[in-house]
Amino acid sequence: MSTAPAPATIADLTLEEKASLTSGASFWYTKPIERLGIPSIMVTDGPHGLRKQREGGDHLGLGDSVPATCFPPAVGLGSSWDVDLVERVGQALGVETSIENVAVLLGPGINIKRSPLCGRNFEYLSEDPIVSGVLGAAIVRGIQSKGVGTSLKHFAANNQENDRMRSSSDVDPRPLREIYLRGFERVVEDAEPWTVMCSYNRINGVYASEDPWLLTKVLRDEWGFEGLVVSDWGAVNERVPSIAAGMDLEMPSSMGITDAQIVAAVQAGSLDESVVDVAAGRVLDLVRKAREGAGSVEGPLDVDAHHALAREAGGRSIVLLKNDGDILPLQGQRSVALIGAFVDQPRFQGAGSSMINPTRVDDLALEVVAQAGEDFVFQAQGFSIAVAPEPAEVERLRDEAVALAAANDVAVLFLGLPARLESEGYDREDIDLPADQLALLDAVLEVNPNAVVVLSNGGVVALPFADRVPAILEGWLLGQAGGGAIADVLYGDVNPSGKLTETIPHRLEDTPAYLDFPGEYSHVRYGEGLFVGYRWYDARRMDVAFPFGHGLSYTTFAYGSATAAVGADGDVDVRVTVSNTGGRAGREVVEVYTSLPGGTVQRPERELKAFASVALEAGESREVVLTVRRKDLAYWDIRTDSWVVEGGEYVVDVAASSRDIRSSVTVPIEGDPIVLKLSRTSSIGEVMAHPVVGPIVQAAIAQMMGSMEGAASIMPEGVDMTKMMESFPIGRAGMFAAASGGEGGVNPEMIDGLIAMANAPQG
Amino acid sequence: MSTAPAPATIADLTLEEKASLTSGASFWYTKPIERLGIPSIMVTDGPHGLRKQREGGDHLGLGDSVPATCFPPAVGLGSSWDVDLVERVGQALGVETSIENVAVLLGPGINIKRSPLCGRNFEYLSEDPIVSGVLGAAIVRGIQSKGVGTSLKHFAANNQENDRMRSSSDVDPRPLREIYLRGFERVVEDAEPWTVMCSYNRINGVYASEDPWLLTKVLRDEWGFEGLVVSDWGAVNERVPSIAAGMDLEMPSSMGITDAQIVAAVQAGSLDESVVDVAAGRVLDLVRKAREGAGSVEGPLDVDAHHALAREAGGRSIVLLKNDGDILPLQGQRSVALIGAFVDQPRFQGAGSSMINPTRVDDLALEVVAQAGEDFVFQAQGFSIAVAPEPAEVERLRDEAVALAAANDVAVLFLGLPARLESEGYDREDIDLPADQLALLDAVLEVNPNAVVVLSNGGVVALPFADRVPAILEGWLLGQAGGGAIADVLYGDVNPSGKLTETIPHRLEDTPAYLDFPGEYSHVRYGEGLFVGYRWYDARRMDVAFPFGHGLSYTTFAYGSATAAVGADGDVDVRVTVSNTGGRAGREVVEVYTSLPGGTVQRPERELKAFASVALEAGESREVVLTVRRKDLAYWDIRTDSWVVEGGEYVVDVAASSRDIRSSVTVPIEGDPIVLKLSRTSSIGEVMAHPVVGPIVQAAIAQMMGSMEGAASIMPEGVDMTKMMESFPIGRAGMFAAASGGEGGVNPEMIDGLIAMANAPQG
Repeated sequence: MSTAPAPATIADLTLEEKASLTSGASFWYTKPIERLGIPSIMVTDGPHGLRKQREGGDHLGLGDSVPATCFPPAVGLGSSWDVDLVERVGQALGVETSIENVAVLLGPGINIKRSPLCGRNFEYLSEDPIVSGVLGAAIVRGIQSKGVGTSLKHFAANNQENDRMRSSSDVDPRPLREIYLRGFERVVEDAEPWTVMCSYNRINGVYASEDPWLLTKVLRDEWGFEGLVVSDWGAVNERVPSIAAGMDLEMPSSMGITDAQIVAAVQAGSLDESVVDVAAGRVLDLVRKAREGAGSVEGPLDVDAHHALAREAGGRSIVLLKNDGDILPLQGQRSVALIGAFVDQPRFQGAGSSMINPTRVDDLALEVVAQAGEDFVFQAQGFSIAVAPEPAEVERLRDEAVALAAANDVAVLFLGLPARLESEGYDREDIDLPADQLALLDAVLEVNPNAVVVLSNGGVVALPFADRVPAILEGWLLGQAGGGAIADVLYGDVNPSGKLTETIPHRLEDTPAYLDFPGEYSHVRYGEGLFVGYRWYDARRMDVAFPFGHGLSYTTFAYGSATAAVGADGDVDVRVTVSNTGGRAGREVVEVYTSLPGGTVQRPERELKAFASVALEAGESREVVLTVRRKDLAYWDIRTDSWVVEGGEYVVDVAASSRDIRSSVTVPIEGDPIVLKLSRTSSIGEVMAHPVVGPIVQAAIAQMMGSMEGAASIMPEGVDMTKMMESFPIGRAGMFAAASGGEGGVNPEMIDGLIAMANAPQG
Repeated sequence: MSTAPAPATIADLTLEEKASLTSGASFWYTKPIERLGIPSIMVTDGPHGLRKQREGGDHLGLGDSVPATCFPPAVGLGSSWDVDLVERVGQALGVETSIENVAVLLGPGINIKRSPLCGRNFEYLSEDPIVSGVLGAAIVRGIQSKGVGTSLKHFAANNQENDRMRSSSDVDPRPLREIYLRGFERVVEDAEPWTVMCSYNRINGVYASEDPWLLTKVLRDEWGFEGLVVSDWGAVNERVPSIAAGMDLEMPSSMGITDAQIVAAVQAGSLDESVVDVAAGRVLDLVRKAREGAGSVEGPLDVDAHHALAREAGGRSIVLLKNDGDILPLQGQRSVALIGAFVDQPRFQGAGSSMINPTRVDDLALEVVAQAGEDFVFQAQGFSIAVAPEPAEVERLRDEAVALAAANDVAVLFLGLPARLESEGYDREDIDLPADQLALLDAVLEVNPNAVVVLSNGGVVALPFADRVPAILEGWLLGQAGGGAIADVLYGDVNPSGKLTETIPHRLEDTPAYLDFPGEYSHVRYGEGLFVGYRWYDARRMDVAFPFGHGLSYTTFAYGSATAAVGADGDVDVRVTVSNTGGRAGREVVEVYTSLPGGTVQRPERELKAFASVALEAGESREVVLTVRRKDLAYWDIRTDSWVVEGGEYVVDVAASSRDIRSSVTVPIEGDPIVLKLSRTSSIGEVMAHPVVGPIVQAAIAQMMGSMEGAASIMPEGVDMTKMMESFPIGRAGMFAAASGGEGGVNPEMIDGLIAMANAPQG
């Protein structure tokens, strides 16, 4: 790209040129229009690094790419719960994108982890929309601060890989709005991504790529999105309804076929040319932004600095799940057995389109040696991650590792999922670690109870050994500097501060989507509704292995009494003093949940609304202020098809995890006014509650109930006849007239008059 | 009714007369047309007795009624699992209906017990559609054998009382067909009820009363129903769409208003007169049947004989949940403390439209005295079932009962739900027994561990004491002779043989519909899908208090090895020898479940397909033959919108309960042929599997994968690239061409050609 003359506008373009702009020139480039000096721009995969494919790639767009820093994938980075850190990683991603002359990095991915089985969960942030939205916005801000764009993906309700090109996510309005769209809304409104990527799947039967409700009504009309919608690669089903729905740029190239379809549809009068103007105009806008941003960062890349950031982020991604007897951090000068194939063959990212060709990869064993000294570090492979290892080899590896564990002070077992078990493109079938790893662990524990498990996994795994191992580090996928990051945490150079952005359940059978994941015959019912992740386990009062929001530290934190107050803007400021009561510096993630006991709509037990990562020196105390946005208290009201904040006394829980509430306080919230019209289908109960006509109807009902008191004496004491009657639609109240032979009953005119009275504008 | 001249036909009637026939004359009568001698017929509530309202009733149609035998409500009778017994009760109901000159008894109700909270569960048979369908058909056969009609209700998916007049049961096709409609289908096809009653609720947004899919396509076109559809009382929302949908008779009277609407619609051309002809014709058919059947039974009613049948049925309804140390049956000449308000105030039926005015009600205490002798029976109220008893009174009652329990050999506690807690018209809010009853039980157990609990409840209750009480009888609601029936079982005159037709869970939070019952704002999502009742607990591998199908006896039964063979008609005959291995005569309910491991569609762990109640003398063995209908093996295929039997090795479990499998055998079942057309949305995997074009595509894919082997080497070992590609719709395969710059790719013509080749008629 180079500086160009005055940019072309839509008016300068022919219909054919406009149509041509709305699909790619190739796998990664938009189309140029040379006569007008409109350049081609490059967009390319992310999200946790730059995957710029080398020239002459393969048929799937998955081939070798130029080296780039592999930062921790979202499953790791999100566990930091740290907006600043995430934004700094975003900035680094922006730098690498800019240096490589790429206009848009295709990320972040913020889909909700509906099931731990989703093969692509490692690319996503959380089972919670606030975590996803807040951290997703931070990534976008970071990247875009460097003059390059992002693509917020995969929009929307794309929560599995199985049959992903067709499967319809059949999800009701409340979960769709409150769980699956809420994070996208947050990122769009707070961070204005240059582009949004529509997903492959259908939502309630309609392809995301051709859904005007999703791409225009919700995204643009409600949320105010002004950028461009790009298709996921191959997500366009039919191009003409797709562009009409607001899907601006089809990727990759359609070889001109769909451009011609657009032109033909305009010529045939079935597509308004203004639709093409809008889409092509958005492509021009994107090209203009890309030009303006181009060259913001000068190369070459400071590989060392970015590796160091990757190491910092990796350390912050690790979650200390348990640490009985303070076995961690490890002491130097004590011998340690490093056991596991992942020591030499680290898993630091997931498979699929997000795979980065890293600038370098840390050697975990060397990093541990650097901490503990060469004489104290020993290593055994322990197990094989090959597809089908020989039984004799499995046994040999195990015996060798057990012997090593027995001979040293501490055994650190690096367990995890072989790469082939989790990937874009397909889902997992269970959440188990391989059986040979579990057997190895059992054998090691028999000879050396001083064992630490360090996990490498992109999706949640069951931890049946959690009660028997004194310390567990959830290492997720940590990017190219994961080896150093793990050593930092093992030896205390970094005090772990990550927390779980997803629940670790006991069993797959306990998970909310268990019985309808991944669906069948291209339909998946989101039967758990609002109750995704911790919302499910809390509501059903189920035990879990480790709850959402959980994570320990090498120090300890105390919480003071929280206060909560509504500010002038309606948001709630929550204040709490957090103290580092232990012996070393650390960070604590403070979590704020709300609930509305006795509310009129169904709600989870508690829902995360705000969080902060707070650094505290040993002994330090600090007041933390967290803001619960008023709009985040709203539920989606299916009667009015709108967000509604219900009034009431909200409970605000300040917590160290979703199941470790440290301070609770209530705050009165004024509700949004709702005016519901009455109709013939309004129930008698609703009519009785109406401010204008309610008293009239109440009197009539009382009279009727009185007149039948004797007759109904067969009913047992306490049976609530009123409840029965209140559920009757007022329009059918004539039935009671039938019961009395037509005498004294109500007639349709009376009912219509009552409704008109209720709905008349009030003085 | 009296014998009339040649019956009128539709051709004899004016439009106004035809319209008038399609709604009631009053609360319980159809309209006569006197000029043609068409009489009015009476229909009236059931289902477990005749509720014929006395003249001059109330405004709700719930007033006092003529005395009738109150048989055990469905919750009890169904627990017998005995088709013959149920049919005999049906015959008795038919006798009483005929004697009272009623044309149609409004029952049975066979809705699925989706949640234990449904206020009307006591009127329903089971959480399982086979139990509901088989026993529902038996009731219909019994009643209709006496020349009177039935009304199969509430059609359909009416599984709660909350907001029942409007709430939309939002349920996916498979659970709708396989769970909620399957029982109705069975009764319609096997027993041909004179009428079907459409329910109040909506299904997927459409009122049952105006749903042409439900009332015409499914009920008549698919199932062959030839009778009349009557509305539940007040279920008609809009009359014109309702009659067009196939809803023939509106009840109760609309005061002529909706008749006029029908006439107006015909005159305006918006409703075809033939629709009115059909509906009115069905009313005429019903009147004709009623006339023909009238007088089949001569009165007066043999009150004693029917009471004796009610007692027999009551005894067969009781389920012995546990009996540690054979504490039951009780021995005569040992002193017994009868404790509980239900001794003197028995709960024997539920509240609402089904309430029978019984001909008499057994006195439980007298019945026990008759067994044990006056000197050995003592009684204490123990607790109050009043709405709000005084705390001092609660304490006094408890102390008195505890003292009595301590002073006698055995304490029998009659616990249960006060009548007001379960009723038509509203749902329960929990499944707990009242706290004072639980506290009383605890106190009694402290002084006398020889305690027996006898439960009276229409809906399932949690049994937190189940581990601590040696014996529990689930007495449900047993009808007017429940007192005698309980005494019969307590003292062994009747050997209990009932089994649970619904699971007793540990906690409400464990139940499948817990998080979406009863829904809100007139929508309830059936989020558990197929997994209703035991299907849920089995699939999620959850512990329950007592499983579906469970029930003990005072004797023991052994099962031989089962065999299963497909007969000429495709049904599967399952044979098993059952032996009474104990010391007294008894009955065993033999249950047959099937499953298809490795099937292509989601299925419950096992599903009930057949059952039989077998009477065996002590020491007797008998071969039992149970038939699994081929059609009951079918799943509802959403691709073809039809029932499909998948081929494969089915597992047949012969069982004493859903969790007590006694013998398993497999049987090969030939599948239904399915021909799926290919299209541009067929996945590459589906195309590869196609018998004709599959090999061509497989070769092309292999070539492509080979060409990228080097390029894709960045992917980890074992990552399944083929899986990713197979999920691509064939119509979008052009994307791979884009990846290779347009060279060697596929184009739309190639794809269309392939599809045409696949879909061409085969040789």
